[in-house]
Amino acid sequence: MGAPALSVVIRKLLIDALKPREIPITELSKAICSAKGVKEVDIVVTEVDAKTETVKITIIGQNIDFDEVAKIIAENSVAIRSIDQVVVYRTRRAV
Amino acid sequence: MGAPALSVVIRKLLIDALKPREIPITELSKAICSAKGVKEVDIVVTEVDAKTETVKITIIGQNIDFDEVAKIIAENSVAIRSIDQVVVYRTRRAV
Amino acid sequence: MGAPALSVVIRKLLIDALKPREIPITELSKAICSAKGVKEVDIVVTEVDAKTETVKITIIGQNIDFDEVAKIIAENSVAIRSIDQVVVYRTRRAV
Amino acid sequence: MGAPALSVVIRKLLIDALKPREIPITELSKAICSAKGVKEVDIVVTEVDAKTETVKITIIGQNIDFDEVAKIIAENSVAIRSIDQVVVYRTRRAV
Amino acid sequence: MGAPALSVVIRKLLIDALKPREIPITELSKAICSAKGVKEVDIVVTEVDAKTETVKITIIGQNIDFDEVAKIIAENSVAIRSIDQVVVYRTRRAV
Amino acid sequence: MGAPALSVVIRKLLIDALKPREIPITELSKAICSAKGVKEVDIVVTEVDAKTETVKITIIGQNIDFDEVAKIIAENSVAIRSIDQVVVYRTRRAV
Amino acid sequence: MGAPALSVVIRKLLIDALKPREIPITELSKAICSAKGVKEVDIVVTEVDAKTETVKITIIGQNIDFDEVAKIIAENSVAIRSIDQVVVYRTRRAV
Repeated sequence: MGAPALSVVIRKLLIDALKPREIPITELSKAICSAKGVKEVDIVVTEVDAKTETVKITIIGQNIDFDEVAKIIAENSVAIRSIDQVVVYRTRRAV
Repeated sequence: MGAPALSVVIRKLLIDALKPREIPITELSKAICSAKGVKEVDIVVTEVDAKTETVKITIIGQNIDFDEVAKIIAENSVAIRSIDQVVVYRTRRAV
Repeated sequence: MGAPALSVVIRKLLIDALKPREIPITELSKAICSAKGVKEVDIVVTEVDAKTETVKITIIGQNIDFDEVAKIIAENSVAIRSIDQVVVYRTRRAV
Repeated sequence: MGAPALSVVIRKLLIDALKPREIPITELSKAICSAKGVKEVDIVVTEVDAKTETVKITIIGQNIDFDEVAKIIAENSVAIRSIDQVVVYRTRRAV
Repeated sequence: MGAPALSVVIRKLLIDALKPREIPITELSKAICSAKGVKEVDIVVTEVDAKTETVKITIIGQNIDFDEVAKIIAENSVAIRSIDQVVVYRTRRAV
Repeated sequence: MGAPALSVVIRKLLIDALKPREIPITELSKAICSAKGVKEVDIVVTEVDAKTETVKITIIGQNIDFDEVAKIIAENSVAIRSIDQVVVYRTRRAV
Repeated sequence: MGAPALSVVIRKLLIDALKPREIPITELSKAICSAKGVKEVDIVVTEVDAKTETVKITIIGQNIDFDEVAKIIAENSVAIRSIDQVVVYRTRRAV
């Protein structure tokens, strides 16, 4: 994936997910924001059903560790329905 | 939640709430703005019914104390219907 | 409402009001702009009826004195129908 | 209207008017722009009828003399239908 | 029209016109741009008919000579249907 | 066309064209961009038919040579359907 | 294609493609971003079907090597349906 000194990093992820209503988005956002390489998490509730809520999770960072993000989301009983956007950059070295 | 020196803070909250018409939004906004870590409060009335008004409360700050915000809202007889957006940041230490 | 040195001030008000057609908005805006803490007043006419006009009054300032604003509006025979938006800030001391 | 050194000035006017088609908006705009305190005049034609045109006249300046503006408009056989917006500022002294 | 040293100048004109299809807008725009006081001409084709095209001509300059612009447009067999916008400024002296 | 030292130059062209599907827009854009005075070419495909594609070609430069652009477009078997916008400027001398 | 020292480079590509659902866009974006001259890749999922997803791939860089990009996309079992936009610039020399 390029010359040794180059690295491709994830800068933005937009995740569509389904969460139980009893999980507060204040807690969920804080948990995701503690993942490696994450700088900012923005969660918007787009649909509310009897037991679940559809949320759009925007994650921004210099070098987002997607595996850790996915693990944290699963640990909070939230199901990723789809990854709707990924933005990657190539940097001289991993930040 | 990260290395000792790191901290995740709430920078923005968007709250959908139902308030009695006799509570003026000038007073409600001032009360919320006195909560720890809050810098700015913007309340917009989106629906007016006979006895209640639906309001969108946007709260911005460097490190919003959600528990205190929720307590102040409840003390003013306002019911939080949903938290529609949360934005959190990771900072070197709590601001 | 916070530590002694802190103060919460109103920076913006959006008022929906009903005014008699014979009150010119040039005069009404000047009168409101003379209230304590007001810097700018923007009045837009949104509906015209036989004897009245619906106006949206946007008031901006460093520390708007709402009581004085409300008094001036009433003295001009204008009825506040609702306060549609309030923006408050917390400052080190009242400006 | 405030302490002696303060003054409230009109910075913007939006006027809805009806003009005879034979009055060119190039001439009308120049005439209005010669009024005291006016810096810029923007006239947009929004409707064209057999003998008349509806125009939106935006007038910007540091301290617009509304009475002179109204007199010039009348002298050009143009009828003010309504003043749709007024923006006033409070300044240390009249500019 | 104001004190001797002041002058009202046309800064923008928006003209709605009908042109024969065989007149290229590249030539028409260059011709108008050569008028006194004109700095920029932007022509957009908004409708195409069998023999004619409707164009919106935006003319920008420090002190547009409308009479010369009108003459050039007529010489190119283009008919001005209406002047849809005029913006004038008052300057210390004509630029 | 003005005093000797003045020159009117084309800064922007928006061309509506029909191209055979087998001509790649990567090649077409590079070819147009090699024309005299062209700095940037942006081609967007707006409609796809069985054998042809409708494209909007935006060409930006300090002094676009339209004749050369038209020749290159024709050489690539692309038909100009209309020139939808031209922006010209007057400069002290040709750039 | 111009004088020896000039070069036309691709700065932006917008590709419409169809990908198997089992290829994660996090991996696909990283692979494309490793192509020569690519700086940023933004993939948005616009439609989800039983086995495939439609994606819009935006590729930005100083001098994008389209052939390498196309090869990488094909190697990931993704079919390019169309190239919807190309932006090219002319530079003094290839970056």
